[in-house]
Amino acid sequence: MAGKELPRVVIVGGGFAGLACARELGGADIAVTVIDRRNHNLFQPLLYQVATAALSPGDIAEPIRKTLGRHRNVTVLLAEVTGIDLEARTVLTDRLEPVPFDHLVIATGSDYNYFGHDDWREIAPGLKTIREARAIRQRLLTAFEEAEMTADEAAQRRLLTSVVIGGGPTGVEMAGAIAELGRFMVSRDFRHIGADRLRVVLVEGGPRLLPAFPEPLAAYAARRLERLGVEIMTERMVETMSAEEVVAGGETIPAGVVVWAAGVKASAAARWLGVEGDRMGRVPVDGWLEVAGLDGIHVLGDTARLIDEATGEPLPGLAQVAKQQGRWLGRALRRRIARGERGAPFRFRDRGNAAVIGNNAAVFDFGWSRLKGRAAWFLWALVHILLLVSFEKRLLVSVQWAWRYVTRQRGTRLIDEPLPVEPQEEPAPELTEG
Amino acid sequence: MAGKELPRVVIVGGGFAGLACARELGGADIAVTVIDRRNHNLFQPLLYQVATAALSPGDIAEPIRKTLGRHRNVTVLLAEVTGIDLEARTVLTDRLEPVPFDHLVIATGSDYNYFGHDDWREIAPGLKTIREARAIRQRLLTAFEEAEMTADEAAQRRLLTSVVIGGGPTGVEMAGAIAELGRFMVSRDFRHIGADRLRVVLVEGGPRLLPAFPEPLAAYAARRLERLGVEIMTERMVETMSAEEVVAGGETIPAGVVVWAAGVKASAAARWLGVEGDRMGRVPVDGWLEVAGLDGIHVLGDTARLIDEATGEPLPGLAQVAKQQGRWLGRALRRRIARGERGAPFRFRDRGNAAVIGNNAAVFDFGWSRLKGRAAWFLWALVHILLLVSFEKRLLVSVQWAWRYVTRQRGTRLIDEPLPVEPQEEPAPELTEG
Repeated sequence: MAGKELPRVVIVGGGFAGLACARELGGADIAVTVIDRRNHNLFQPLLYQVATAALSPGDIAEPIRKTLGRHRNVTVLLAEVTGIDLEARTVLTDRLEPVPFDHLVIATGSDYNYFGHDDWREIAPGLKTIREARAIRQRLLTAFEEAEMTADEAAQRRLLTSVVIGGGPTGVEMAGAIAELGRFMVSRDFRHIGADRLRVVLVEGGPRLLPAFPEPLAAYAARRLERLGVEIMTERMVETMSAEEVVAGGETIPAGVVVWAAGVKASAAARWLGVEGDRMGRVPVDGWLEVAGLDGIHVLGDTARLIDEATGEPLPGLAQVAKQQGRWLGRALRRRIARGERGAPFRFRDRGNAAVIGNNAAVFDFGWSRLKGRAAWFLWALVHILLLVSFEKRLLVSVQWAWRYVTRQRGTRLIDEPLPVEPQEEPAPELTEG
Repeated sequence: MAGKELPRVVIVGGGFAGLACARELGGADIAVTVIDRRNHNLFQPLLYQVATAALSPGDIAEPIRKTLGRHRNVTVLLAEVTGIDLEARTVLTDRLEPVPFDHLVIATGSDYNYFGHDDWREIAPGLKTIREARAIRQRLLTAFEEAEMTADEAAQRRLLTSVVIGGGPTGVEMAGAIAELGRFMVSRDFRHIGADRLRVVLVEGGPRLLPAFPEPLAAYAARRLERLGVEIMTERMVETMSAEEVVAGGETIPAGVVVWAAGVKASAAARWLGVEGDRMGRVPVDGWLEVAGLDGIHVLGDTARLIDEATGEPLPGLAQVAKQQGRWLGRALRRRIARGERGAPFRFRDRGNAAVIGNNAAVFDFGWSRLKGRAAWFLWALVHILLLVSFEKRLLVSVQWAWRYVTRQRGTRLIDEPLPVEPQEEPAPELTEG
């Protein structure tokens, strides 16, 4: 928007990938515009801690303007993108004039995939937005309050049962955190709930938990979860669900809270661009993160499908992939715009993959090495603190963790609405023929 | 609920008064039940900081169960009280069997008084609940985002105008905090908003701000607010308002955000008890905080009208009054139940009254002495940190304040819902003939 002569880079999405890209472009002779429908970047890897009342939403969300405010060549716009006009080279939104670009960066992330059962979204929120995390927190805490007050044993058992669907890292983390929260609350703060009535069920469709991890780490995670009281059901597909129960593998599980962590799909970018996405809706890109045949149109992070040359597989939807791609593309665009150089293609450096199981155990897979147990937990905590965007968040979260580690308290057990929040997602963006 | 032979004390309301009372009863041979419609106690004096994105809701809210969990004779119930059956001596709620009591403590606080214009509540939320504070935060931040994106100058001026109604401490604090937030955001994070378009208007019906404070302190507060850019309009009553403007004293002020801080009324306790409340709906109590003619029925805090013998005036609705009354009554009930002693009546000790103006100034009135300026601000901050219920909150808030004092950053500028939240209060409790 500033300076008509400057080359214009428009970045759609202010998550890890988009922000890393925008930061690298800060201070360059380039007019950068970041468009997002939310005003904050969310540290999704810790969202399960908001859902289990260990952190406040504000602890893991950064205003995009705060992150980018000091770069005077970067403009931030809060709007919902509705399509891309490839002819006119503009981004269409719900409330602005079309935003023109010379180079476009799409980093709009992913959403949970309900595999055609979109009515399950309301019963079983995922863990992608603050709204969903808050809905889960609300439901968990409200279920315990209602269990405390009911005299009906079956109803109490149902209210105290949580079902987590999906045995990847998010599902494992969520199941462990719910089990710990429940046990802690029951033993200390409730009077009429027997600890034997608490139930956390983790349902996985495949043969084992953590399919992306080496088998010994997955087996360790299963043992640790079982020690926390989590029931693990593998090779079970969810057949139906209602507000009161989940049916999986023929078994009916009456449940008070259901959480969805069973697979993702990319955002609508493929349709905006009129290209064919892969099975998960991701847009295929080349080593320069550019879409084949669409000059100057880049897709990053969870929205992109990039084959990793080291493994021959597509890169996974991880924060570290998104950040590395964003940083790489920002630098590449600077070089390309200033000197017309294309440079070497992007190469992913695997920093290791982790899943945490409750307050004291984690598994870490570095490819060339593995770590598990308490040491892995401390490493995980350290890495996640360092990853948090700003210094203030790092400091705050570490103080809270340290304090909770000592006291086992949960500080943000807040039921802040009189009724459970319906975790209705925003309406899907309108599509415009590209 | 535990042990039928134990004397039963039921406390309705888990705010400052109710919790202080429950804590004093902890460990006694008394079955104590605390009933609240929310699961948390809110530190209302800092709610304006949530509304202006300086603190997270979780920073100033404590789960009631967390506060009371270690007292095994205390049961906490989450329910909405709908009435009191004075004959049967039970508390009626929306979801439980009637809860029997021997001694009843009502500490249900106060609500904003819209003086018959209840339709204004949605346009101009007050500052009593997290929901309202979050709605104000949402509206402030969204108005700035919209102002950044509009090309219409009149619309931009309207969006950047905030009107605060009521010149007491809450109104003064809110106006100062909005002015600081706006100036900070505009100078750093926005590109298309001129600082000259920011406007904060503080409307007061009486002849001056802070009527409960000595005149010189009020004059100082007015000067400080004006230095922050706040326009002060005294002797102006609000005549009408809509989502787009406020009409006060014949003048129409187009406004993006309106906040109500213009007077409170007590909760429904008087009607529950079938007694006549005063002009503000408060229940008259004697020096033992007991309602005349209703043996064993006590009313505290904002809900009670107790004439202070020192001044001949009713005690004001302050956190310190509520806490002192709660503590006193807890001890008095212990003595009365154990030994039948009535003891000396309650006596309020005034710890001083404060209002803060922006980040660096406050006024403090101790009755026998006064303080203003930066020293008063530091004293205010210290007092409020010490007042926060638990150690963790104290630590966290002080870290955040210290950090913000250095950086002038606002960490929790979170717009977490796609649309502004309607600050609809919970429906008024159904009344039951006592």
